[in-house]
Amino acid sequence: MSDYPQVADGLIRAIENWPEDGVTFRDITPLLADPQGLSATVTALVDEARAFGPIDVVAGVEARGFLLAPLIAQELGIGLVPVRKAGKLPADVLSESYSLEYGDAVVEIHTDAVTAGSRVLIVDDVLATGGTLAAAVRLFERAEAQVAGALVLIELPALRGRDALVDVPLTALLEY
Amino acid sequence: MSDYPQVADGLIRAIENWPEDGVTFRDITPLLADPQGLSATVTALVDEARAFGPIDVVAGVEARGFLLAPLIAQELGIGLVPVRKAGKLPADVLSESYSLEYGDAVVEIHTDAVTAGSRVLIVDDVLATGGTLAAAVRLFERAEAQVAGALVLIELPALRGRDALVDVPLTALLEY
Repeated sequence: MSDYPQVADGLIRAIENWPEDGVTFRDITPLLADPQGLSATVTALVDEARAFGPIDVVAGVEARGFLLAPLIAQELGIGLVPVRKAGKLPADVLSESYSLEYGDAVVEIHTDAVTAGSRVLIVDDVLATGGTLAAAVRLFERAEAQVAGALVLIELPALRGRDALVDVPLTALLEY
Repeated sequence: MSDYPQVADGLIRAIENWPEDGVTFRDITPLLADPQGLSATVTALVDEARAFGPIDVVAGVEARGFLLAPLIAQELGIGLVPVRKAGKLPADVLSESYSLEYGDAVVEIHTDAVTAGSRVLIVDDVLATGGTLAAAVRLFERAEAQVAGALVLIELPALRGRDALVDVPLTALLEY
């Protein structure tokens, strides 16, 4: 057993009633700002990334996934692909929408972001309802890539995000 | 002389008339997706980061700066701080606005993001007019940190962004 959960928990800040009343937000900025916390996070993410088997590319989900995915790509010596919000990518894109509490949102990748058959690891900071990650999975499936797995720093099991990702191996470093 | 500019230029895609007519956008996504391109980018960024002298923390500017700043923090073994768009950070923040072509935008850091006196390296993908980077500099100065420098992948000298950053050491890996 790694002691990562204890190390990380001491550096993750609970913000009550944010972004709305009744919600406790888990703020990872103190963890990222702490050199030992960041280093331990990289080690833990990379250990779990390797457990998915061979990976060809790491995909980070905008915006906080962008802070974690590069660290994994660098350690594994592979490429990095951003999954962006609508309208941010300049070339031809694939788009997938997903439901938010009020209305829909869209995520996109470039149509040539990955080569067919590549094994992709999708990385985000938090798994909540799973809508964003499930949309990201659909993007890479449409690009004919193989989604090797999804890796998040924090899972909020009460929101049942795993139910949106039943066919995708999923690992979370921490649960709240 | 490093051969990084030639390596990178071959992996940066020019997108004509994006985001608007008459503008040529430099798309770094093929560079990031290429394992050798990403690795060479990390090496070049870290070499330039070290040239600013001792650095205590790397700050990445949302969103594309988030893809580069973690790579530098990891290699230097120091912490990572996000400079975010308005309303994204959950705790108490410092805010600075800057002018866009139409209207203003705001960037923020947590008030406790850095300790007084720390030497901060601010990282973004592109230096255009310099408005965002200058606002980020003001944020860290208000937090009583010392801005050791600003490091960007690409500078667009025609937009004279350096004029907005006269008191800050600034390095760009590439110019277009």
